[in-house]
Formats: sequence, structure tokens, C-alpha cells
Amino acid sequence: MVTPEKTILTGDRPTGPLHLGHYTGALANRIRLQHEYRTYVLIADLQALTDNAERPEVVSRAVTEVLLDNLSVGLDPERVTFVLQSAVPELAELTQLYLNLVTVARLERNPTVKDEMRQKGFGASVPAGFLCYPVSQAADITGFEADLVPVGEDQIPVVEQTREIVRRFNSLYGETLVMPEAMTPVVGSRLPGTDGRAKMSASLGNAINLSDSPEMVREKVMGMYTDPTRKRATDPGHVEGNPVFAYLDGFDSSVERVDEMKVDYRAGRVGDVAVKRYLADVLEGFLQPIRERRLTYEARPEDARAILAEGTARGRRVVAGVLAKALAAVGLPAVFDEMCLSTLEVQ
Amino acid sequence: MVTPEKTILTGDRPTGPLHLGHYTGALANRIRLQHEYRTYVLIADLQALTDNAERPEVVSRAVTEVLLDNLSVGLDPERVTFVLQSAVPELAELTQLYLNLVTVARLERNPTVKDEMRQKGFGASVPAGFLCYPVSQAADITGFEADLVPVGEDQIPVVEQTREIVRRFNSLYGETLVMPEAMTPVVGSRLPGTDGRAKMSASLGNAINLSDSPEMVREKVMGMYTDPTRKRATDPGHVEGNPVFAYLDGFDSSVERVDEMKVDYRAGRVGDVAVKRYLADVLEGFLQPIRERRLTYEARPEDARAILAEGTARGRRVVAGVLAKALAAVGLPAVFDEMCLSTLEVQ
Repeated sequence: MVTPEKTILTGDRPTGPLHLGHYTGALANRIRLQHEYRTYVLIADLQALTDNAERPEVVSRAVTEVLLDNLSVGLDPERVTFVLQSAVPELAELTQLYLNLVTVARLERNPTVKDEMRQKGFGASVPAGFLCYPVSQAADITGFEADLVPVGEDQIPVVEQTREIVRRFNSLYGETLVMPEAMTPVVGSRLPGTDGRAKMSASLGNAINLSDSPEMVREKVMGMYTDPTRKRATDPGHVEGNPVFAYLDGFDSSVERVDEMKVDYRAGRVGDVAVKRYLADVLEGFLQPIRERRLTYEARPEDARAILAEGTARGRRVVAGVLAKALAAVGLPAVFDEMCLSTLEVQ
Repeated sequence: MVTPEKTILTGDRPTGPLHLGHYTGALANRIRLQHEYRTYVLIADLQALTDNAERPEVVSRAVTEVLLDNLSVGLDPERVTFVLQSAVPELAELTQLYLNLVTVARLERNPTVKDEMRQKGFGASVPAGFLCYPVSQAADITGFEADLVPVGEDQIPVVEQTREIVRRFNSLYGETLVMPEAMTPVVGSRLPGTDGRAKMSASLGNAINLSDSPEMVREKVMGMYTDPTRKRATDPGHVEGNPVFAYLDGFDSSVERVDEMKVDYRAGRVGDVAVKRYLADVLEGFLQPIRERRLTYEARPEDARAILAEGTARGRRVVAGVLAKALAAVGLPAVFDEMCLSTLEVQ
């Protein structure tokens, strides 16, 4: 295996099990990229707390869940370094250094943060940690010296914020941090929810999870929103805006078969129930190997724990090195030799 | 030596040499308290950066300076643990946890921060790190499990902010953090500047530093502001608002002698020059042993370095323990065994 030249940072906020929307939006891309890039997958538990401080059990439950989701879909722990954010305090110190380089007004103008603040209804009582999370993401990105950050369109402002911080840090203290670039996915559109809403999301209750049982998947598929204008199976149906066909586009490997079915649906030659049964089979074919891999890991929980612990130790050494470089660039004295991280004891 | 039951956190922002105002306002008290309490002295270099990000050399120069100042005045490294803030990333992670428990609006209302923002003329472009510094102080205070925090009146709101965070953390996640109390000095009023302004401050150019040479001290004393209404040595003089007498009150061990001199000054029996010469001698008597101790340390820079490194390693273990407790209380998994800090290698 040739050592990849460029580094990617990606990751998940552990707030619940990952679903099909995460798969098409991020994981599919991640699986592909692991072969081309040095890949860090950050399980961003501290960031997940920024809007879950009052229900931390949501985050604690999800950490292992999200790790298993990543492993089950085919992320290879030999290629990918999994890192638990809260076990790398050096990321928090980088955040603290960067907070001096960003004004409060600039953070309040961040479009991603503004949108999310509106969605979450924080109003005037936004927690400081939430306002500051793009700076913490800048620490994550630069801490692993990522060249590229795979993001959806809506996360581009976060990478832009990081680039501003890197520019300012390097111009004030000398060339130190790696300048990252956003990498927007070539394919992979946003998957609608089972209820037809634009976004699949656990909090909207319209998600099919990667860890759902076959029965649950079938039940969710059979209850899906389709074409509300269609009363009978013989009525001509609409394919656009119909999530059943969006899912078929996303998960059926036979494009011809889906195209045929679309023609039949439009002509009123196939009923909703038949199409849904077909989709349930397609999803089952997709989810079956994922479920099996998950079962293997669930049977040996110490393996998953070791993957996270070893990845975190490896990642922490990288971040500690960047922090040491950053502190030296600022001009603060080094007290410890290499932060002792070569001897990190994994629990 | 009996192990003290209670812990104090105190410290300095390294932004320049410490002066006589620091001595009466903080150091005198600190010297006394070291005999009664387990004392941590934090050299808060990261906090000093919150308003010096564009001139980090101010901070880098001052770290060693401030350590030497503390040692020279008689802080005993056998009793006191000196800790360099930037070498304890676990403090930054505690900060990050606490930032979720404080709203931006609350930080903007902090009277100490408001005052300082006005003084520094930040306006709308206040750096996020500056707004958040009371949360970082809460991490310092709770990270060392301080029971008591010696502060001046103007810093009481910072301790109040910490108490709010502790209350909220413990009520959300269970009894974890030690509730600190502000300890306002019994004696020790604020020392005026040599120019008669209310506050001695390096940035106002009206300070006598603990490390000033005898010549420099004499020169600064002879140029001091006294009583502007007095034209001749035989005019009756004012003692109130006259910094020369404030300094005599602060540093002359003979209260009788000072009282006598005040009577003579008010009666026009002693001139400004004579009083200043007397003050210069008093200060010289006070500064001489401090200067000697400093010379000893300056001759063996490796000793001062070892004091800081060993103190920081000891302090870091305490903070890492508190962080581990805090993460466990929140419910996040522990990846590392004891954070490997028992083997911290001192550089």
C-alpha cells in the first residue's frame, strides 16, 4: 500500500444512529476516498454536546453506534484512523488559540451557524459553545493537517472560516498551519425522508437507519409517502418528488430496471405497493452485508474499542505535534518533551 | 509540614514585569497564603494572548519574567506549584465543556469583561477569545479544584461566573466540580501610579517594577507626582492623594516614622525632595533582598525552568484528573488509561 500524499478530515457528530441519508450524503464518498487519501474520521462528541448539553445521554449512547455504523458500511480500520474528539484535549487548545483570531461579530455572521441557530430556536440564549463551534472545527481540520475536507454545500462556510483562521494565523505567526480546501461530492444528492420532506433526519422521524432490522426497514418502506395525487394503481403516477424513486435511484444498482419501473409508474401500469415491495428488496440487498459486518463487530466489542483507542492515540500524536508547532510559532515556551504521547496507554 | 486542607488558585497574566502595584495588590497576600493553603500559581499565557494575539512577543518575553518576579518576592517553590497554562491542554477542554453552559448574552453582561472591552476599545470587533476568557478562568479555578480564589474587588464577577458554571454543571451531570469562593484581601489597597493616577500600570508608564535597578527606582521616585498645590517646601502640603505617602504607607515598616513625616509635611516642615529621598531608601530596603534572590535564580536559569516544568507536570496531572471526572460525569467514554500523565517527560 503506497502512503497517500494528501490527508482528509471527515467525521460525524454522534447524536444518533446513522441513516441512509448519511450514507448517500457522506459515507459512500468516504468509502471511496479511503483508498486515495490518508483519512481521519473524527467522532465529534464534544461538538455534539454544543447543542445537547442538557441531554448528554444522546451523545454518550451514539459514540459506539456511530463507530459501528462506519465500520459496518465498509470503512477499513487499517486504512482509516478513527479518533474520539473528547480524548484529544490538544484540539481544544488549538480552538482556544484560534478564538483570539476571530471576532464575535464574524461568528454571528456565519451562514451555517445562523441557519442552525434559527432551526434550533436558540434566539438570544445561544450557548457560547455553539457560537464557537466553527472555530473548534477549524482546530479539527488543522489539527490533523487536512488538505481536503469533504463537505456538503451547506458546510462550505465552515471550511471558509477555517481558511480565514489559517490565513490569519500564518500571517501573524509565520507559515505553520496547512491550508485546507473544501471537497464537495461529485455525486450523492440529498436523500429525502420517508415522509417526502427534503431531508432525512432522526429528529423528523423520517429516517431509515443503517442498523434497522429487516422488519423495520420493510415497515418504513411500506409506509412511505409517494404521490398524493394518485388514488388508484391504474392512475398515472409522478416520479419527481416521490421519495420511493429517489431511494431506487440511490440504492438500486440496475439503472435499466429503475427506468423501466418509472415508465410503468408514469403510465399507471404498476401500483405503489408493488414498487415499495421492490424497494424494500433493494434496500434489503444493500443493508444485508452492512448488518452482517455489524454483527461481527458487535460480537467482539473489544475490537471496536481497540480500533477507537488506537486510532485516537495515533491521531492525538498528530494533533499534539501541530499544537507544539503552533505554540512555538506564537512564541510560548515548551515545558514538556513531546507531550509524552509516544507512551500513551490505551485503556 | 502538615498538608493544607484547602486549595488556592492564583496567578498572573504574563504581559510584562510585575511592579509594586502587583506586590501590594496580590503578591504580598500570596506570600502569606502559601503557608496556609495548597497554592497553585498559574502563569496564564493563553489568557494573556486573548488581547495580545497581534503582539505575542509581549507574552513570550514575560513568562520567565513573571516566574522570576514570583520567586524573587519569596514564593517558595517547595510550597507553591507554578503551572504554565499553555502546557495544560486539559484546561482548554474543560473550557470547551463549560462554553456549552453559558450563553453569549451572559458573557456580554459580565461587568469585568464589559469594563475591559471599553478600556481596550474593542467595540464590535471583540475577539471571541476575549469574550470567553471568564469561562477559561472557570476552567482554571475548577481544574485545580480550588476552594478559594484571592481576587481584587474588580475580579469578583469572574468568580461569580465560575460559581454559576459549577452550579449548572453539577446540577446537570451530578456533583463533580468543587464550588470555589472569592477571597478578597483583608489588607492591601490599590497602589497609585508614580504620576498620581489611581492605578499603577505598565501601559500607563507609571510603574516601579520589582526588577528595576536601584538607579531606575531612585529616578522614578525623584520624578514622582506629589502635591501640585505646593510651590515651596515651606508651604503646608497634602498627604491625601499624594502617591509618595501611599508608597510609604505600603512599604515603610515604621508606621511611627511615616506618621511623623506626614505631620511635618502637612506643617510645611519637610520638602518634597527630602520625602522622596526617604521613600527611595525605603523602597531600596524593600527591593534589595528581592533583587538578590532574582540574581541567584538568574545565575541558574535551569533551576527556574525545572520549577516551572515540574510544577506544570504536577498541576497537569490534577487537571487531567478533573477532566476525566468531568467527561465521565457527562457520560463520554474514556479511551486512555489515566492520560499517561504519570510519565510526563519534563524537557
